[in-house]
Amino acid sequence: MNKPASAKPKTKRGLERRAQILAAAEQVIGQQGFAAASIADITRAAQTALGTFYIYFASKDELFRELVQDMGHATRSQAAEQVAGAKNRLEAERAGLLAYLTVVRDRPMQYRIVEEARFVDPDAYREYYTEFGKAYADQLDQAVEKGEISPGDAEVRAWALMGAAKALGERFVLWDDDVDLDHVVEEAHRFICKGLAP
Amino acid sequence: MNKPASAKPKTKRGLERRAQILAAAEQVIGQQGFAAASIADITRAAQTALGTFYIYFASKDELFRELVQDMGHATRSQAAEQVAGAKNRLEAERAGLLAYLTVVRDRPMQYRIVEEARFVDPDAYREYYTEFGKAYADQLDQAVEKGEISPGDAEVRAWALMGAAKALGERFVLWDDDVDLDHVVEEAHRFICKGLAP
Repeated sequence: MNKPASAKPKTKRGLERRAQILAAAEQVIGQQGFAAASIADITRAAQTALGTFYIYFASKDELFRELVQDMGHATRSQAAEQVAGAKNRLEAERAGLLAYLTVVRDRPMQYRIVEEARFVDPDAYREYYTEFGKAYADQLDQAVEKGEISPGDAEVRAWALMGAAKALGERFVLWDDDVDLDHVVEEAHRFICKGLAP
Repeated sequence: MNKPASAKPKTKRGLERRAQILAAAEQVIGQQGFAAASIADITRAAQTALGTFYIYFASKDELFRELVQDMGHATRSQAAEQVAGAKNRLEAERAGLLAYLTVVRDRPMQYRIVEEARFVDPDAYREYYTEFGKAYADQLDQAVEKGEISPGDAEVRAWALMGAAKALGERFVLWDDDVDLDHVVEEAHRFICKGLAP
C-alpha cells in the first residue's frame, strides 16, 4: 500500500468511468468483503473491460483506499450542508443524525466498507474518522462561542457523538428493516441535548 | 460454523487449560487477525501441544465464537459489578465508562477481536452487542423508575451510550498512549448527564 495514488482523470468521461468503477466496488466489496471481491467482479459490475480498471487504479488496495477517502469527503460535505441549513447547533445535531441514518439506510455497503477498512487499510480508516472528528469538533467549538451549546471538551464530545450515531445506525438501521427513524432520532436528540439527568 | 460447541471441561485442570488456550488466542488473533492466526500459533503461545487444542475446540471457528462469547460474559459481569457499587445511575455511568476504557487500555486485543467478529462471525458479533444492549437498557429502565434519570427510550439511549464509549475507547485509548483517562471520563460524563444544551 505504499505505491502513490494514480493521477485522477482530467476528462469528464474519465471522471465518469472512475466514478462508475468506485460505485461498483462499493456494492461488490460491501457484499463480498475485500478479500473475496476480485477486480474482475468489480469491472463486471461496472460493465467495463478488466483493462479499464488499471487506467484509473494501480491495484485493488489503491481502489479501496480511494473508496474510503471518497466516502469520507462525501460524508463530510453532506454533514456541512446539514449544518448550513440548521438554525443553531442543536438543530444541526438533529438534522445531521437523521441525514447520517438515512445514508446508512440507503447505502448500507458504505458502513461495512468503512468498518472493514479498520483491518484492510488501518491508515485510511483512521484518517476517515480523524478528519470527520476534527470537522465536528470545530463545529462544536464555534457553537460554544455563539452560546448555542454549553462549554466542554469539543473532541471528547465529537467522538462520543460520532460513536452514538454509528451504534444507532448499526442497531436501528442495518439490523432492523422496519424501524421508525423519526422516533430514534427524536429520542437520541433529546438525549444529546439534555443528557440523562432527571 | 454450524457444528455444535464442544462440551466444556469439567475438571479444574481442564478448565485451566481451556482458559490458557483462550488467553493465548486473544493475543495471537488480536495481533495477527483471524485469517492469519493458525491453531499452531495459538497452541505455541499457550505452551500446549497442538493436539490439546482439539480436546477443547472442534475448530478455529468454534474457538473464535467461544472467545467472543467469553468476552461478552466477562464484560457484562464487570459492568454489573460497577453498577452494584454505585450510589445511583449517573454515578454508575461514570464508573462504567472508566471501567470500560480501562479494559480497552489493559486488553486492547479484546476490542480488535470483537470488531473483527463483525466479519468473521456476524452472529457472535451481533449477540455480543445485543446482550449487552439489553442488560444496559434494563438498567436504564430501572433507573427511570427510581427517578434517578429522566424518562426516555431505554434501547435508543443504551445504544447511543455503548457507541459513545466504543468511539472514546478507540480514539483516546487505542490511538493514544498518553491520554488523561480521568479527563476524558469527566468530560464524557458531563455530556452524558447534561447533554449539549446551554
